[in-house]
Amino acid sequence: MQSYNPPIRDIRFVIHELVGAASICALPAYRASECDPALIDAVLDEAGKFAGEVLSPLNAIGDREGARWQPGSDGTGEVRTAPGFPEAYRRFVEGGWMALPCAPQFGGQGLPRLLATAVSEMWKGANLSFSHVITLTHGAIEALTIAGSDELKATYLPRLVSGEWTGTMNITEPQAGSDLAAIACRAEPQEDGTYRIFGQKIFITYGDHDIAPNIVHLVLARTPGAPPGVKGLSLFLVPKFILDAGGAPGARNDVHCASIEHKLGVHGSPTTTLVHGDHGGSLGYLIGEIGRGLEIMFVMMNSARLSVGTESLGVAQYAWQMASAYARERLQGSDGKSGGKVPIVRHPDVRRLLMTQRSTTEAIRALAYTIAGLQDVAHHAEDAEERQRAHRRVELLTPILKGWSTESAVDLTSMAIQVFGGMGFVEETGIAQCLRDVRITPIYEGTTAIQAADLAGRKLARDGGETLNAFLDEMRRDRAAMRTADDPTVRAIAEELARSLDDAASAADAIRQKMTSDPAAGLVVAEPFLRLMGTTVGGWLMGKAARVAAAALANGADDPFYAEKLATAKFYADHVLPRTAGLAMTVRSDDGLLLALADEVF
Amino acid sequence: MQSYNPPIRDIRFVIHELVGAASICALPAYRASECDPALIDAVLDEAGKFAGEVLSPLNAIGDREGARWQPGSDGTGEVRTAPGFPEAYRRFVEGGWMALPCAPQFGGQGLPRLLATAVSEMWKGANLSFSHVITLTHGAIEALTIAGSDELKATYLPRLVSGEWTGTMNITEPQAGSDLAAIACRAEPQEDGTYRIFGQKIFITYGDHDIAPNIVHLVLARTPGAPPGVKGLSLFLVPKFILDAGGAPGARNDVHCASIEHKLGVHGSPTTTLVHGDHGGSLGYLIGEIGRGLEIMFVMMNSARLSVGTESLGVAQYAWQMASAYARERLQGSDGKSGGKVPIVRHPDVRRLLMTQRSTTEAIRALAYTIAGLQDVAHHAEDAEERQRAHRRVELLTPILKGWSTESAVDLTSMAIQVFGGMGFVEETGIAQCLRDVRITPIYEGTTAIQAADLAGRKLARDGGETLNAFLDEMRRDRAAMRTADDPTVRAIAEELARSLDDAASAADAIRQKMTSDPAAGLVVAEPFLRLMGTTVGGWLMGKAARVAAAALANGADDPFYAEKLATAKFYADHVLPRTAGLAMTVRSDDGLLLALADEVF
Repeated sequence: MQSYNPPIRDIRFVIHELVGAASICALPAYRASECDPALIDAVLDEAGKFAGEVLSPLNAIGDREGARWQPGSDGTGEVRTAPGFPEAYRRFVEGGWMALPCAPQFGGQGLPRLLATAVSEMWKGANLSFSHVITLTHGAIEALTIAGSDELKATYLPRLVSGEWTGTMNITEPQAGSDLAAIACRAEPQEDGTYRIFGQKIFITYGDHDIAPNIVHLVLARTPGAPPGVKGLSLFLVPKFILDAGGAPGARNDVHCASIEHKLGVHGSPTTTLVHGDHGGSLGYLIGEIGRGLEIMFVMMNSARLSVGTESLGVAQYAWQMASAYARERLQGSDGKSGGKVPIVRHPDVRRLLMTQRSTTEAIRALAYTIAGLQDVAHHAEDAEERQRAHRRVELLTPILKGWSTESAVDLTSMAIQVFGGMGFVEETGIAQCLRDVRITPIYEGTTAIQAADLAGRKLARDGGETLNAFLDEMRRDRAAMRTADDPTVRAIAEELARSLDDAASAADAIRQKMTSDPAAGLVVAEPFLRLMGTTVGGWLMGKAARVAAAALANGADDPFYAEKLATAKFYADHVLPRTAGLAMTVRSDDGLLLALADEVF
Repeated sequence: MQSYNPPIRDIRFVIHELVGAASICALPAYRASECDPALIDAVLDEAGKFAGEVLSPLNAIGDREGARWQPGSDGTGEVRTAPGFPEAYRRFVEGGWMALPCAPQFGGQGLPRLLATAVSEMWKGANLSFSHVITLTHGAIEALTIAGSDELKATYLPRLVSGEWTGTMNITEPQAGSDLAAIACRAEPQEDGTYRIFGQKIFITYGDHDIAPNIVHLVLARTPGAPPGVKGLSLFLVPKFILDAGGAPGARNDVHCASIEHKLGVHGSPTTTLVHGDHGGSLGYLIGEIGRGLEIMFVMMNSARLSVGTESLGVAQYAWQMASAYARERLQGSDGKSGGKVPIVRHPDVRRLLMTQRSTTEAIRALAYTIAGLQDVAHHAEDAEERQRAHRRVELLTPILKGWSTESAVDLTSMAIQVFGGMGFVEETGIAQCLRDVRITPIYEGTTAIQAADLAGRKLARDGGETLNAFLDEMRRDRAAMRTADDPTVRAIAEELARSLDDAASAADAIRQKMTSDPAAGLVVAEPFLRLMGTTVGGWLMGKAARVAAAALANGADDPFYAEKLATAKFYADHVLPRTAGLAMTVRSDDGLLLALADEVF
């Protein structure tokens, strides 16, 4: 099986030449961390090695062996991760990888999100199941950093930042999935200021495991007398083991793993049901203020959505690599020229499949890293207005990345299976795992419908559409620059992009009107609108990349990568970008017919 | 778990009102079988019961338990099917279901393919793994009927037609997948006119099992001195047990099951590796003439392609049903009107997902049954020219159905998972199985690339494009009739269809030119062209269906089905049909860039 091969060349291109690492490194916070482009490259190389050599070999093992639940010493059950996972996690922590993007005051390395996103793409691509524990721990770190008391921060953050302990998010309950207002877990205040938590949480990733000596659960729950709905939710920190006087894990807390799910994919990542309070309540500490739980969670959730977009990128990249390797090695049929058999990569449709995978993956990477760079600016630019502008742009692009990249990745991994033909359906080749694993990404951290509603509702309506209009204007300006480029490929891409930009603008007008006059009718076409926007944004970024590549070639660069980038951008413009035409028609012409039909018709 | 619910209402509509069962029943062969519309309805009801009550309950069991290989009494191994499969097969045979479409002279019921296709949709939808043994047995019956000697027919056909014994196709070898010219199995003639077969065959569906006392393998192999390539292939009948003097299964033949595959889906259907000739050669009987093996196989393969199209229809239908039932039962969120929770079917995007599934599935059914009706005409019309015309139309539509319906079904079953949200990723809900099962359909019996090449190459070029042009003209005429319909929905659909017909015509011209000037450049866009054609044909048939429905309503029909059909057709026109715009652009604008790139770029 083809092991994960870190796509360092394209990662560097996007970081340095498309997003511009130099300007990110120049932000005061990163000057303080002594981050520079050379450091970025060194970190990428080391991360690539770790991903390829340590995480990738465990990917199939995690799938085959899975995390297992077994009756535990605590009376309910505990989770054993797949063979090799605990050792790999130990090495991950020893390598200091958990600390990479975290704040220096708690032991973090304070490196840019732009770099952290690239590094995380490699963890996710090499082993999505393993990477979940990193994502969740970073989420817990973020929430504590935003809202934790000084005491909670001092006690827990250093151990989370180092990776000594891991984190979880306890959100979902059987009756409360996409609808967080339905959360029913109770938190009862105690005299000493702590809380006792009661209730069941489901779908808790790495809610129990054997790779670290303690787990820090962040739990959404409802205090007595809290208002109904999301305003009644507060956030609590519930350690698996309560700390003793010396700060070490001591008594077992009353939160137990009742079972784990048997899932389509990510078998190596335990998806647990956690029961709080079967024996008197789990001990919890309030994070932030009463009733502000959702706000804090939302900050984490935005990061989590970008993280899931990066997951779909990583897996799509790996699937393409596997298909690509197979296509060069598998001999079948002839090309009509030589007499003998040829590798199937010579067949036109196999080329089409592979190039669709490569070019779309590159477009997704360009968008994910663009957002990460904007996050760095939003957090650390000196000018407040610049920070605000970047923040708004991040908020606009986040649902687009999450929705579009994850839906695309399902198609792209399915295409990778297709390249393998019959062998793609046989589990031992490993390619089917990519589809099974990535299929969760359009679901968790807000389904595509949730992303689409966020985009069509909150994000478009906000500030009278100013953020979107400014963004469309920027894409149009870049398009105008492409149109006058010396390179004919760049000019050809500009032609196709012009049409998609018109599609985006007309669809945005149409959906804005619908959201105003009849929001439900707008929501019927919100998902096609989101896909239209993702496809267009991908085309814009691939066009920009083509311009950079053409300029490099004009300046005498002899790296074949630049000519390849022109080819992948042109292919994207010919094969992916035209989809916006149909999507725009759908957004415009749907008449809300569905809303009037009886439930029984569906 | 929602059990399979036969979609009898839409099946009847398509059979009687869209394709027109009355005219099919009037063909001489079916008059002889005493087939009439009432009989068709009675058979549909009985088949629906069998599918829902006997096959559907075994679907999840087949997935979970799978077919198992175990060391066998024959020295290598044998296959045990999942619990319940042997008993269900016994009841299937007792019910006479295998004989339904077969020729009366060998014990068949001689019923129309139109009906047989509808019935098989139900077997496939209820339990795809189980249905494979039916498909393969019908394939063997067809090949023997076409080309077997009278003796072979007399000996084997009655037992296959009754279902007492089952059939297989032994085609693929490790080095010969899509490329049949690479088949290397040897057939050595014996003095008594029989052959001894040597070699390994892989991916042989139901190549071994425990549900019938004998298996009739049809094996492609090469005789000594045969020319290289496909012209050197001959077809042989190789029984698992050699018949004794009384015609009963006697000595074990030298064909053994070495292993079965661990697959992404259809776990209940054993995919075997068969070894011929480890102990002196398996005994085989020549079917037809030496060197004509591929021709015979090709007739079977065309039927098999239609059958796979129907498989994807059946599974997509079942996935929609499951998602639909879940959406009406799962309470989550509010609709902003009532205060309380609503079933998720009220949410606009869930409606969009479900209606995309329902409408596309209906379009696929309309195409599959249309082809089946044309097959009946092609086989049994009294007028030779009418037979020939129908035959050509079947040949044009077959790759379109196979490629478009299977690729669509992957998307549709994935959408069904999306409706389930997080529960869709949990195997116990059963919806993930639909995606895992259906993912094989774009691969076997000719990948989508093979279908696309067949369409863009052989089928378009043939008879100077006359068949395609006649077909486009027919669609345009129907479109013109829709445009003047009284019903405004039908007229609106006609508008959307007009654009897609133009897309189809312009893309057909473009691809024909490419196939002439540079076939490889044509093949780069053959798959987008196929999807464009499938989408357009689906729109044409949904438009026709809408016209029929509007007419029924105008005539006072009070069945709510007709209003629903107008809605599904309109939705298809708004949400699916517009995709042809982008596909046509791709077909026209791709410049064959891919062909000039180095293998390493992919």
